[in-house]
Amino acid sequence: MSVSIAVLTIGDELLDGSLSDSNTARIATLLGAQGLSLRESLTIGDREADIITALLSLVKQQDVVIVTGGLGPTADDLTARAAAKAFNRRLVLNDEALQQIREYFLTLGRPMHPRNEKQALMPQKVMVMPNRVGTAPGFILHQDGHDLFFLPGVPEEMNAMLEAEVLPHLRQRSSAHARQQERVLRVFGLSEPKIEALIEQAALPTELRIAFGVEFPFVLLKLRASGDSATALLEQAETSARQALGDCVVTSGSDSLAQVVGRQLTAAGKTLALAESCTGGLLSTLLTAQPGASAFLQRSAVVYANQAKSDWLGVSSEILEQEGAVSEACALAMAQGMRQAAGSDLALAVTGIAGPDGGTPQKPVGTVFLALCAEGFEQVKGYRFGGNREQVRLLAANMALDWIRRHLKR
Amino acid sequence: MSVSIAVLTIGDELLDGSLSDSNTARIATLLGAQGLSLRESLTIGDREADIITALLSLVKQQDVVIVTGGLGPTADDLTARAAAKAFNRRLVLNDEALQQIREYFLTLGRPMHPRNEKQALMPQKVMVMPNRVGTAPGFILHQDGHDLFFLPGVPEEMNAMLEAEVLPHLRQRSSAHARQQERVLRVFGLSEPKIEALIEQAALPTELRIAFGVEFPFVLLKLRASGDSATALLEQAETSARQALGDCVVTSGSDSLAQVVGRQLTAAGKTLALAESCTGGLLSTLLTAQPGASAFLQRSAVVYANQAKSDWLGVSSEILEQEGAVSEACALAMAQGMRQAAGSDLALAVTGIAGPDGGTPQKPVGTVFLALCAEGFEQVKGYRFGGNREQVRLLAANMALDWIRRHLKR
Repeated sequence: MSVSIAVLTIGDELLDGSLSDSNTARIATLLGAQGLSLRESLTIGDREADIITALLSLVKQQDVVIVTGGLGPTADDLTARAAAKAFNRRLVLNDEALQQIREYFLTLGRPMHPRNEKQALMPQKVMVMPNRVGTAPGFILHQDGHDLFFLPGVPEEMNAMLEAEVLPHLRQRSSAHARQQERVLRVFGLSEPKIEALIEQAALPTELRIAFGVEFPFVLLKLRASGDSATALLEQAETSARQALGDCVVTSGSDSLAQVVGRQLTAAGKTLALAESCTGGLLSTLLTAQPGASAFLQRSAVVYANQAKSDWLGVSSEILEQEGAVSEACALAMAQGMRQAAGSDLALAVTGIAGPDGGTPQKPVGTVFLALCAEGFEQVKGYRFGGNREQVRLLAANMALDWIRRHLKR
Repeated sequence: MSVSIAVLTIGDELLDGSLSDSNTARIATLLGAQGLSLRESLTIGDREADIITALLSLVKQQDVVIVTGGLGPTADDLTARAAAKAFNRRLVLNDEALQQIREYFLTLGRPMHPRNEKQALMPQKVMVMPNRVGTAPGFILHQDGHDLFFLPGVPEEMNAMLEAEVLPHLRQRSSAHARQQERVLRVFGLSEPKIEALIEQAALPTELRIAFGVEFPFVLLKLRASGDSATALLEQAETSARQALGDCVVTSGSDSLAQVVGRQLTAAGKTLALAESCTGGLLSTLLTAQPGASAFLQRSAVVYANQAKSDWLGVSSEILEQEGAVSEACALAMAQGMRQAAGSDLALAVTGIAGPDGGTPQKPVGTVFLALCAEGFEQVKGYRFGGNREQVRLLAANMALDWIRRHLKR
């Protein structure tokens, strides 16, 4: 049987325009990947009466209520007290929660502020959910066959607790048969309508449902099926979709492109060095966000000043004066110079104009040159990316990653 | 008098993880700029019974309900019919709406599809709101002194109608006197409870309301007031809060710390160079996210390999062998070497262990050393940051930015 689930998000900042709620979308996405969907989602401010009313009304209508926010140490954090009142329980100092908060501060090597004790005040008879990335433990409250999960509002704390504690509970509560399964393919370099047209030609199984998402600069193609044959169906669909979209499918599942490239480099035992200009360190940041990056990334340089391009990468003054820092010749010289400086297997360079200023009629904002060098291999190319500064930087950095991915696949 | 406002967002795609709702945040932001805030926000799927229940329940509690979604031409667009049923009105073909749809297609130079006629079906006795960027007109329904605004769900259509039609109505309904004003202070290096304790001692005006938010690694302190004296009150409160929190207030308003540091450097005409290890380019990325960074950032190096530390920054093999790459001595040598290589006014270095691997009992994960060099100035210090890899990197990069901010304030 399918379980009906609601989300209750608590916080004035979500209603007065100072913060936009990302938790609801995150919960919907994670549940969606399990084949579950929300029945409703409600956001209210930090008022005790409103919280009580919302809890009572939601629990009357839904099997499960996921509550986020209001578990912090300050006076405007009212969720635990409101939950106690709503369900006629005493608010008590939960020893297990207090112990967890103390231990969290111990691992940080910092003293616990007395006010953090408030975060151990919980309604009677709840199950504590540990928080590994912050001070606020969560809790589960059972009431007349309904489950209420109380999570912190800080997105990364909410997210960690949701995955570790809430999802396993929900998987148990809902039968496998009713659940929808999903495969997500991350596509780079094809637009949504283009993907849709290619997929229509591929004639995927008709029982399959298809949805699209965007995580700039990627398009997510979501293949969904339910029932006993879902796994086989998705297997077949993924194969057909990959045939239709070819090399533009960069990853499947939740992997980022940088993760895939990092694994490729590690598996091949290859080292890499990067020379960045317009991306300003973003390419290095993406690659080093994953643990273990020091195994393949030797060094990287953000060379804004021309002096840095010549000092560190040996770019000649002729190139800088005649071709300019944003040119095919400069990109290639940067990559060659970087490979020599680092003694790495691969070296990649990116130079361009991210904007909003600095564009010219010949080289408008969005002009970006990439170059990749390896033993006996050189590749260089210019692009004209659309979008604002952030989008140009993201496109350039991910295009660079995609170059490395394709090179290592050869 | 203050007017209480709710948002109702309708659409299955918002609850199954395939689309994340941006309309609510947009409405909250636009209202917030007017000093208005939402009382609650509810999202439900495309089921007629759920829509009727939600409309009746919201209109009972709030003065104004802003509804988005479900006005399209297809079978799963149920909002107008549900509204008619909820308020016991007949669903009729609205001539004015039909006329507007016809005219919209005329301006596009395309024939109107017969299905679009459905979009002119509205409850009796409503006011039509024109849609200048799409086919679905909106409408206003008055019921027992309450106003319900029905808008399309496509963000750009919703947005245009909100600004042109809904906001003027709401401004009229709420007096300027009741509207709330806000000041946001971004605090770095103090925990939420600590800030609350300091603010309590500062004895801010009692009419002031205080709220907290988190944008890791910052805490946002929000000061709010309404009424005729709100501006003066907030002025006085900000002064007192800044006195109480001292130098830990890094910015006010929506500025990021990197933006503030960028402006300081530009105003002082100082140049900067960066040597990063454990932050892997994140510090450079934060500083170069803003336009104009090339005016002050000369170069930056991610020196993972020891060879890079000695080649580019002249870090001696004695330091690397005896003290190690993660040490006070190495951080200082990196900053000194970088300042010399770049010839910059300032040079900052960061080296540490972001984890999850690489920690030792003497230097556990989270150990980070910073060093800052300028003419006649040297500063170096070790930290032990808590949290996961991403948090350690964010803390280290922002601590580095905060060092530069404090140095330039002297």
